[in-house]
Amino acid sequence: MRAVDLIRKKRDSGEHSREEIDFLVSGYTRGDIPDYQMAAWLMATWIRGLNRAETAALTEAMLYSGEVVDLARIPGKKVDKHSTGGVGDKTSLILAPIVAAGGLTVPMISGRGLGHTGGTLDKLESIPGFNVNLSLEKFIGVLSECGMGLIGQTAEIAPADKKIYALRDVTSTVENIGLICASIMSKKLAEGIDALVLDVKTGSGAFMKREEDAIRLAEVMVETGQRMGKRVVALITDMNQPLGRMAGHSNEIAECVDVLNGGGPADLRELSVELSAWMFFLGDRTETLEEGRQLAEKMIVTGRAKEKFKQGIRLQGGNERVVDDPQLLPQAHSRVDVASPSSGFIAATECEQLGTALAMLGGGREKKEDTIDHAVGLEFHKRIGDRVEKGERFVTIHYNNGTKLAEARSLIANSYRIGDVEPREKLPLIRRILGA
Amino acid sequence: MRAVDLIRKKRDSGEHSREEIDFLVSGYTRGDIPDYQMAAWLMATWIRGLNRAETAALTEAMLYSGEVVDLARIPGKKVDKHSTGGVGDKTSLILAPIVAAGGLTVPMISGRGLGHTGGTLDKLESIPGFNVNLSLEKFIGVLSECGMGLIGQTAEIAPADKKIYALRDVTSTVENIGLICASIMSKKLAEGIDALVLDVKTGSGAFMKREEDAIRLAEVMVETGQRMGKRVVALITDMNQPLGRMAGHSNEIAECVDVLNGGGPADLRELSVELSAWMFFLGDRTETLEEGRQLAEKMIVTGRAKEKFKQGIRLQGGNERVVDDPQLLPQAHSRVDVASPSSGFIAATECEQLGTALAMLGGGREKKEDTIDHAVGLEFHKRIGDRVEKGERFVTIHYNNGTKLAEARSLIANSYRIGDVEPREKLPLIRRILGA
Repeated sequence: MRAVDLIRKKRDSGEHSREEIDFLVSGYTRGDIPDYQMAAWLMATWIRGLNRAETAALTEAMLYSGEVVDLARIPGKKVDKHSTGGVGDKTSLILAPIVAAGGLTVPMISGRGLGHTGGTLDKLESIPGFNVNLSLEKFIGVLSECGMGLIGQTAEIAPADKKIYALRDVTSTVENIGLICASIMSKKLAEGIDALVLDVKTGSGAFMKREEDAIRLAEVMVETGQRMGKRVVALITDMNQPLGRMAGHSNEIAECVDVLNGGGPADLRELSVELSAWMFFLGDRTETLEEGRQLAEKMIVTGRAKEKFKQGIRLQGGNERVVDDPQLLPQAHSRVDVASPSSGFIAATECEQLGTALAMLGGGREKKEDTIDHAVGLEFHKRIGDRVEKGERFVTIHYNNGTKLAEARSLIANSYRIGDVEPREKLPLIRRILGA
Repeated sequence: MRAVDLIRKKRDSGEHSREEIDFLVSGYTRGDIPDYQMAAWLMATWIRGLNRAETAALTEAMLYSGEVVDLARIPGKKVDKHSTGGVGDKTSLILAPIVAAGGLTVPMISGRGLGHTGGTLDKLESIPGFNVNLSLEKFIGVLSECGMGLIGQTAEIAPADKKIYALRDVTSTVENIGLICASIMSKKLAEGIDALVLDVKTGSGAFMKREEDAIRLAEVMVETGQRMGKRVVALITDMNQPLGRMAGHSNEIAECVDVLNGGGPADLRELSVELSAWMFFLGDRTETLEEGRQLAEKMIVTGRAKEKFKQGIRLQGGNERVVDDPQLLPQAHSRVDVASPSSGFIAATECEQLGTALAMLGGGREKKEDTIDHAVGLEFHKRIGDRVEKGERFVTIHYNNGTKLAEARSLIANSYRIGDVEPREKLPLIRRILGA
C-alpha cells in the first residue's frame, strides 16, 4: 500500500477500506508518511468527504493510535459530555460537579479555545494554581477520589489526532464532518467512558451555523459512538447568542459558581441541568430522564455540587476559595459599556463576532501560541427578544489592554441587530435530541 | 496575506489574484511556505481547477522564480518543441538536428521519463559519454556553435517548478490542466525562445486519454504562451499506439538515426517533418508551412541533419560514432517474441500498458530514484489495422534481466485487441492544429 495511491483514491472520490485508513493513520503517527502527503489527503477528504464506515474507521484508527484510559478500578459508570463550542459555553464546569456529586465518574479530557470560542482548560486556568496537565496516573487518582477530573490531551491520548489536528489547522481542512467527528470521538472514547452526551451547537456563534449541518455532524458522532458500543445522545442546542451572561475566563468561572449556588442565568442553568440529566440517565444513575433532572437540581440545592467543585479544584492544585469569593479570580482594571445605537427589540446577534471581539481584547487566541488574559470578559445585558432603548448599554467590556478596544467595541455594537417588532416567540434552547 | 487563507479560498472554489499566486509561488520557493501547505493548496487546485488568468499568473510566477536564458548574443530565431509524452515518442532527437541544420537555434531543456513514458534525457544518455548536465554557460556555448543543445532543467531554470513538480508527484496532484500548463510553459519560456511548437498527445498511451482533454490542455498552453508574446501552435497527435517501431533508449536512438538517414517508420518521419516544418515557419525561416516541410526533407536527404546530430553529440561529450554504427549503443543480451493469441486485425492497443511493460523490464522508472537499463527495448511489428495471424509475433522484447519477463510479456500480449474486421480507415496521426 502506498500513501500516494490512497491520496489519489480519495481525490477521485473513492471509498477507503478500514485497512487503508489504518495504514494512513498509523503511518502518519509513526512519521513514515510525511506531513505533505497527509495534507494532500486531508484536502481531498475535506472536499470529497468520508462516509459513515470511513468515519468510524478513522475514529477507531485515531483512538487506537494511543492509550484508552483504564478506569476499571473505579466502580460505577463513567460518563462525559462534549460540546462543539461556542461563546459563553461553560456547562462542563457546572455539570461535572453535579454529575460527580450525584455518584457517577466524569473523566473529562478537554481542549483550549481557538478563534471565537472559549476552551474549558483556559477557563480552569483562571483559577489560581489549577493544573490541567496531570499525568494519566494522577488523573485516575483524582477521579478515584472525587469522581471528576479535568485535564488536557496527554501524549498518550490519541496522538494521531493531536498530530492531524495541528496539520488541519494550518491547511484549512478543519470544518469537515467526518474529520471533526473522528477528532472528537477518538479523544472522548479514549477516556474509557460508558456513555457520552454531545452538545452540538448551531447558530451564528457555532462552528455549524446551519442546523442541518449540526444535525448531520450529530448523527455521525452518535452513530460512530454507538458502533463502538457506547451509549451516546446528542442535543442540538442554540448558539445564536452567548450562553449565559458572561464570556471570558474569570467571569465564566464566577457565573458557574452562581449556578452551583442556585442562581445564575436561566438558559445556562437549564442547559446544565438538562445535560446532567442525560448523563445520569445514560449512566444508569436514574431510571428516567426526569429523575435525572430532579437529581441534578438536588445536587445544586443541597450544595453538594458546589462542594464537589471545590474538592475537584483542590485536588488539581487550585485555590478552592475562589468558589466562595470569586473576587480572588483575576479581575480586569477597566470596564466600558457598549450602548445601543437605536431603540427597539433585539432581533439577532452575530454571535461569532462577539467571540472574536473577546479574543481581540486578549480574552482568546488568534494563534495557538497566543497567551490569554483571563481577566478580560464580556458581560451581556440583553438577550434576543429583549427591549432596548437608544443609548442603553447592551454589553459591558472588562479589559486591561485598550489597544484594540475601539475595534472590539465597534465589532460588538455591529453584532446586534435591532428590530422594530417584538419577536413573537423565543428561540428554543434545545432544538432536537438525537440517538435517544 | 496568509497561505492558510489562500488554501481556504481555492478549497472553496475561489479565484486567485495574480498577487496571491505570486505570494504562494515565491513563498514556497523561498521556503517560507512549508510543503504541507503547498500540498493542501495543490490538492484544492487539482480538484477545483485554475482558470486561464490564474494559469497564466502561475506560469509567470514559476518562470520568474528563476532565470530566463539570455540567447541575445546568438543571432536569429530560437524555437523549441515540447511533447506531453508517450510511448516511442522520440521526435525531439530528429527535429532538433533538422531545425538546427536548417539555420534556427533549438535550445531544448528536457525531462526524464516517469511511469509509462520515456524521457529525452534518458534516451540521450544511452549514447556513451553524452552529458545532459551542462551549466547554462556551457549550454549557450554549445548552442552558439551548432544551433542545438539538449540539457536537463538546471537549478537556475524555474526552481519553483522543480520544487512544485516534486511535490505534485508524491501527492497525486499531477494530472491537472492548469498545473501541467504552468509546469511545461514556465520551463519552455525560460529557454529564451521566440516560438514554440507543442505536440499534445492523446489516446491510450498519452496522459490525456481523451481528445477533448488534450484539446483543452493545448488551448490553455497556446493561450498562455501567446499572452507572453510568443508564437505558439499545438498539434494534437495520436498516441493510441507507439510512435515508430521502437520503444526504449538505445533502440530509439537507432531509429532516429534511421529517419535522419532517410528511412525509418513512416509515422515517425511524418510527425518529425511536420513538427520541424512548424518550427521553421514559426521561426520565420520559411514563409509557408509547405516550404518548411520541404526544408525539413532537404535537411534529411542532404545528410545535413545527420551531420548536425553528430556535431551536437560531440559537443556534449558523446560518442558521435553511434550515428554511423548504432551497435555501439548498449545492446541487450536476450530477446524474446510475444505472439498473437489469435488471428485477425489489430483493432486497438492499450498503449500505456506497453510503456509500463517496458519500465517493468528496467527500461523505465517506477520511482524517480530508479536507474534505467538503456539496452532494454520493445520492437513493435504490427500497427493498428494490420493483419496478424495466430502465433505470429507482434512484439519483440530486448531484455537483460528476466525477473519480470513473464509479467511484462503477459501485459504486452493483453495490450493488443484483435478484431475480425479490417478497420475501414487508419487513424490520422495529426488530429488537429490549434493556435495557428
